[in-house]
Amino acid sequence: MTNHIPEATVARLPVYLRSLVALAATGPTTVSSDVLAELAGVNAAKVRKDLSHLGTHGTRGVGYEVDRLVFEVSRALGVANTWPVVVCGLGNLGRALANHTGFTERGFPVLAAVDVDPATVGTVVDGVPVHDPSQLGAVVEEHGIAIGVITTPAEAAQDTADRLVAAGVRSILNFAPTLVTVPDDVDVRAVDLSLELQILGYHLQRGVPVAE
Amino acid sequence: MTNHIPEATVARLPVYLRSLVALAATGPTTVSSDVLAELAGVNAAKVRKDLSHLGTHGTRGVGYEVDRLVFEVSRALGVANTWPVVVCGLGNLGRALANHTGFTERGFPVLAAVDVDPATVGTVVDGVPVHDPSQLGAVVEEHGIAIGVITTPAEAAQDTADRLVAAGVRSILNFAPTLVTVPDDVDVRAVDLSLELQILGYHLQRGVPVAE
Repeated sequence: MTNHIPEATVARLPVYLRSLVALAATGPTTVSSDVLAELAGVNAAKVRKDLSHLGTHGTRGVGYEVDRLVFEVSRALGVANTWPVVVCGLGNLGRALANHTGFTERGFPVLAAVDVDPATVGTVVDGVPVHDPSQLGAVVEEHGIAIGVITTPAEAAQDTADRLVAAGVRSILNFAPTLVTVPDDVDVRAVDLSLELQILGYHLQRGVPVAE
Repeated sequence: MTNHIPEATVARLPVYLRSLVALAATGPTTVSSDVLAELAGVNAAKVRKDLSHLGTHGTRGVGYEVDRLVFEVSRALGVANTWPVVVCGLGNLGRALANHTGFTERGFPVLAAVDVDPATVGTVVDGVPVHDPSQLGAVVEEHGIAIGVITTPAEAAQDTADRLVAAGVRSILNFAPTLVTVPDDVDVRAVDLSLELQILGYHLQRGVPVAE
């Protein structure tokens, strides 16, 4: 049904999904590409192009059915699937992520965590069992972990990535403020929490409000 | 010097800056667009186009000077400026952000926080004084706050945005899992912590490693 979808479109699909879910909660059953574009912060032509990659086309004068679109975008994103997550490093950020209900809702349940603090290992934090990093192999096997999230300090990030890779994890989300090196067949995405602040800063410096 | 820079380029500048800072720490004084492209996860032609918007062009066979590029990208991003931040909501995520040294390094010091918990108000958390949300106006004035970060639960996000706007804040970063409505002259950017997970999930579903 869906052929290869361009990477830039994939990156916008979660934004559309969030906008659509928020919209569905407020009532309307249809949405125009103009409205969806405004909610998602992109232009309407791009919305139509992106959605056409899913094989979905709106009806002139009516727009898109919200429910149908939620289904199509979810399916393209693989949200129907569940990808168990292990959080590595239970500082404030690790705890915030382990406790983030939005992950479970979107098919990314946090089933385990690892931390070096002996006082935390063996306990259950917000419903998530905490193990020693040396146990990662067993943890990944037991829970069928698909994605490892790194929330350690920068200096522990590479070692954590190595352990995840050795345990067979092929998808890593890195929140640590450093680059990690992994084999070619492993997918790493880095999250820079200050990226959006820097974009706001750029607009502040220019003295103009944000524009698409 | 720099004219208007396209929004998509602005969004990539922090990624370049992070890659360049990491690179500078490891030694090389020059970098090719190919290497910078690989570090930043975009293609080399896009890197050259993006940097040309800053008035910066590499030397054939040599590439770009790393130090010069750090300076140019920082200047374009306004990193030379400092934009004081208030964090609204001191749950795990709010504490993680209040405590994130990367923000200060990039010119976004967290100078204050607000929280509804009476046990927290009046204390200092990780060096950040905590106030009652009703004091936002005074907090913004005292610290010259430029950016408000919303890390409240979803149900408190709109009220928090309204208080920030009333206090004169014109730039808001929203981590709460809900849309907030603000006047046209206010810049809001939303961060969806599960967005990158959804992109990883898409690749897992396709069974292919990430490709640009």
